[in-house]
Amino acid sequence: MKIAIAQLNPTIGDIKENAQAILQTAKMAQEKGADLLLTPELSLCGYPPKDLLLNPSFIESLSRELSQLAKDLPSELTVLVGTVEINDQAKITGEKSLFNSIALLKEGKIQTIFHKRLLPNYDVFDEDRYFESGKESHVFTMGNTKIGVTICEDLWNDETFWQMRRYQVNPVADLVNLGSQLILNLSASPYTVRKQQLRESMADHTAKRYQVPLIYTNQVGGNDDLIFDGNSFAVNRAGEVIGRAKSFVTDLLILEFDETTQNLSLGNINFLPETEEAEIYSALVLGVKDYARKCGFSQVILGLSGGIDSSLVAAIASEAVGANNVLGVLMPSPYSSDHSIIDAEKLVKNLGINSYQLPIGELMKSYDQLLEPIFADTPSGVAEENLQSRIRGNLLMAIANKFGHLLLSTGNKSEMSVGYCTLYGDMNGGLAVIADLPKMRVFSLCHWLNRDAEIIPANVLTKPPSAELKPGQVDQDSLPSYEILDDILERLIQHHQSADQIIAAGFEAETVNKVCKLVSRAEFKRKQAAPGLKVTDRAFGTGWRMPIASRW
Amino acid sequence: MKIAIAQLNPTIGDIKENAQAILQTAKMAQEKGADLLLTPELSLCGYPPKDLLLNPSFIESLSRELSQLAKDLPSELTVLVGTVEINDQAKITGEKSLFNSIALLKEGKIQTIFHKRLLPNYDVFDEDRYFESGKESHVFTMGNTKIGVTICEDLWNDETFWQMRRYQVNPVADLVNLGSQLILNLSASPYTVRKQQLRESMADHTAKRYQVPLIYTNQVGGNDDLIFDGNSFAVNRAGEVIGRAKSFVTDLLILEFDETTQNLSLGNINFLPETEEAEIYSALVLGVKDYARKCGFSQVILGLSGGIDSSLVAAIASEAVGANNVLGVLMPSPYSSDHSIIDAEKLVKNLGINSYQLPIGELMKSYDQLLEPIFADTPSGVAEENLQSRIRGNLLMAIANKFGHLLLSTGNKSEMSVGYCTLYGDMNGGLAVIADLPKMRVFSLCHWLNRDAEIIPANVLTKPPSAELKPGQVDQDSLPSYEILDDILERLIQHHQSADQIIAAGFEAETVNKVCKLVSRAEFKRKQAAPGLKVTDRAFGTGWRMPIASRW
Repeated sequence: MKIAIAQLNPTIGDIKENAQAILQTAKMAQEKGADLLLTPELSLCGYPPKDLLLNPSFIESLSRELSQLAKDLPSELTVLVGTVEINDQAKITGEKSLFNSIALLKEGKIQTIFHKRLLPNYDVFDEDRYFESGKESHVFTMGNTKIGVTICEDLWNDETFWQMRRYQVNPVADLVNLGSQLILNLSASPYTVRKQQLRESMADHTAKRYQVPLIYTNQVGGNDDLIFDGNSFAVNRAGEVIGRAKSFVTDLLILEFDETTQNLSLGNINFLPETEEAEIYSALVLGVKDYARKCGFSQVILGLSGGIDSSLVAAIASEAVGANNVLGVLMPSPYSSDHSIIDAEKLVKNLGINSYQLPIGELMKSYDQLLEPIFADTPSGVAEENLQSRIRGNLLMAIANKFGHLLLSTGNKSEMSVGYCTLYGDMNGGLAVIADLPKMRVFSLCHWLNRDAEIIPANVLTKPPSAELKPGQVDQDSLPSYEILDDILERLIQHHQSADQIIAAGFEAETVNKVCKLVSRAEFKRKQAAPGLKVTDRAFGTGWRMPIASRW
Repeated sequence: MKIAIAQLNPTIGDIKENAQAILQTAKMAQEKGADLLLTPELSLCGYPPKDLLLNPSFIESLSRELSQLAKDLPSELTVLVGTVEINDQAKITGEKSLFNSIALLKEGKIQTIFHKRLLPNYDVFDEDRYFESGKESHVFTMGNTKIGVTICEDLWNDETFWQMRRYQVNPVADLVNLGSQLILNLSASPYTVRKQQLRESMADHTAKRYQVPLIYTNQVGGNDDLIFDGNSFAVNRAGEVIGRAKSFVTDLLILEFDETTQNLSLGNINFLPETEEAEIYSALVLGVKDYARKCGFSQVILGLSGGIDSSLVAAIASEAVGANNVLGVLMPSPYSSDHSIIDAEKLVKNLGINSYQLPIGELMKSYDQLLEPIFADTPSGVAEENLQSRIRGNLLMAIANKFGHLLLSTGNKSEMSVGYCTLYGDMNGGLAVIADLPKMRVFSLCHWLNRDAEIIPANVLTKPPSAELKPGQVDQDSLPSYEILDDILERLIQHHQSADQIIAAGFEAETVNKVCKLVSRAEFKRKQAAPGLKVTDRAFGTGWRMPIASRW
């Protein structure tokens, strides 16, 4: 039996287009002799559809399109499509009104529906907001093979793997008890660094524990802050990976299930990115590419300071939309060092992107003059520093508005954490490309980029980071070294450690307390930040829900 | 038996201060002869604590402070305190790790813990993210009276009131079955227009259905986008309101439960605001006051255009922080009409606030000159219009940064819906005061404000709304009339109607389709908006979770 994985890149809510993509892929799969085609979780609407699910007409459209798709698909091919089903009993039983479901389509009809049983409601996931849990698992039969269907999170509750339970039931165990000889998992699992290794390790464990092969289908593509890496794969009964689709692109992977041995045969195994840097870079490129494409932009713009953050974002953008579609704007002030211009110009040349230079000195003077009566006799400080950043932000938005470009913001996670960034200034942009990269990761990514040839100018990597908002300023005037800062931030943000715990781990109390205070105080800035591409387990964004007017 | 309601205004996360407030109120209640003191849901940490709950040290602090509070409270007074309890079994059973609980404190100890059973996970509520549902209800006894404890949502699932179930169990029914002679509800229920009428109607229904008196305790105060209105109240067995605390302020209400008749006696009943306008105005004043106070601001700043939106916000701000703590900045451009200055100056005088005038014409020229080489031969358009708004936004932020003021943004819900507002321009601010008021409501609120004397200058209420970003511009050049727009928006946003349904209700197809498109396209702006004070059932903010890069 030939099983095909359609690793699709849906646009959220574009039901007709998504259905077309399923149809096209089904025809290709049929040509390759597939008997069964798997598509990702919610493949018909894209994941996550969020509050679009609250519109009854959206649910009706899904239902209508699913029926049409069933008719249009090659009738002898069995196709599993991710969709939403109405829970008819909801108002009587007090359950939620929808199910996150998989429809089995064959011979022009919807043959069976499977409901997702384990609904994640942590981090970026809000599934309890919309969905009721499926109460039981079902198998379906192809030839003589009983096949069990799980949806994403259904696979993530093996207490012997995690040493704990996240949910009260284990759908995989139930499906094995029902005699499943093959487990399918249809997912929309967002990328984080090295998550694929975790997925494969979990699949290995599951296959061995239950002596059953497993096929994992994932969505691919960028949807706002979330990047889906694809990397669909399959393991045989011994837990060995016997097939893997490509990373970060759509793909169609064909697998062979031997009904005699009840096992998956060795097939095509694509390599995973070798380093974390290679992986993150591909993820961010896809994130930018898809955000631009799905929002209807073909060109992007960003400010180039000659610093490392904007240099990295320019490189990512060039890869994502093509260097000739990237516009870098240099906006030197009287406080800008010579090298900031030289370095930015070098970068422009290395990447082959377009650039403008707009010195902001005159605008700074105009603002100073206008504000003079109000600011008279006050020392120059944060207000004046922010103003420079906001003049630049305005210029970038003016050009973006004029020519219909997407403005990319270039702040890193370390800055966003401690508020070392200007709201309505350098935070301006439709997408914050490296907002989930700590500064040290920004460095390692740039070094990786330069592994064969200089892309990021060498001087950018060696000079001390500076916002250049006053004469001679460097970041370390007001922040600890980035090695220390990033370590403290990871403990605080990712590992939920308290100040006391971090101090006990050997960090200076004064530094730790200062950082904790800065992080808490910068919440109002993060609240108004552009969506930032998520690559860690705990990113500022959908999965970060902090009160602002609070004291802790 | 005397029962006191402590209608408290906690600061999120400020556990020590919140405990002190409970302690002070308990002493006052004791002086007034109370036997039992009720505090709101999660009164020890404030509601909603959001992701602070993910920090183990936060949970430990709550636990420590609760034990201390038990010791510090008057020992003969029974006090119900809202807190968070750890679910010890979570990792074994796969349940969530915390409970949303009420601790019964008496004689220096935590005597009993009650867990919330119904966890809201819709609109602004995310309780499934943190909490496990309590599995059963318990009563406690005072004298000869059995008392049942419910927490907020526990009360909101009477299928005979709603004609549907939201949850599978009804804790009130369970408590009555356990012999409760009095039902307590400890809530943190956010304000929306006329919600108190709904609460009292539901309490009336519940009391009558089960023949049991009911005491409803609510939090008061502003916490970011949410405003809690207080309005704690009690109904007797016949469902009649026999006591009501004040609206929008802290209060201590004493009730008398007659153990012989097993009923609540008539007590002090505060009036509710008479009109929706009076209610909304008080809500917004509290929202501004508490956001400023809890964030540590004593002064606010806003731009005054001479238009109705900024005029209303200035009036609200004056009431919230005092007129002498409000700074209005007039920033006329060459496109500003004479009346915009005259009207704004009139407003400044009527309110007695401070003001500056900063004409932006020279700055506009400076930007134009700098951008001239890039913009040459392009027609003046949205880029130039937005630039004016962004110059103003920069000036306001510069002054706010310089003097430590809180910038209030002044956009209304109609504008925010269709994107008729400038990101990084007039959207700038720490709090969006009227972001949940449709334009027609802004008008009605201003007319209500002027009921006795002119506060909002008469001309502001009669001239056609205009952004004044180009010569002779008025809003209705590019938008339908606000009567029609607001009606379409309410159907679309609040009632989840489709374009087809709205057209079928008699609206012009072209207008409806245009509005739907504008709403969808403005999602990227709303994503970066300041928190907006919520007064409707469906506000942009915490409870609005839409994808940006989508097509529906």
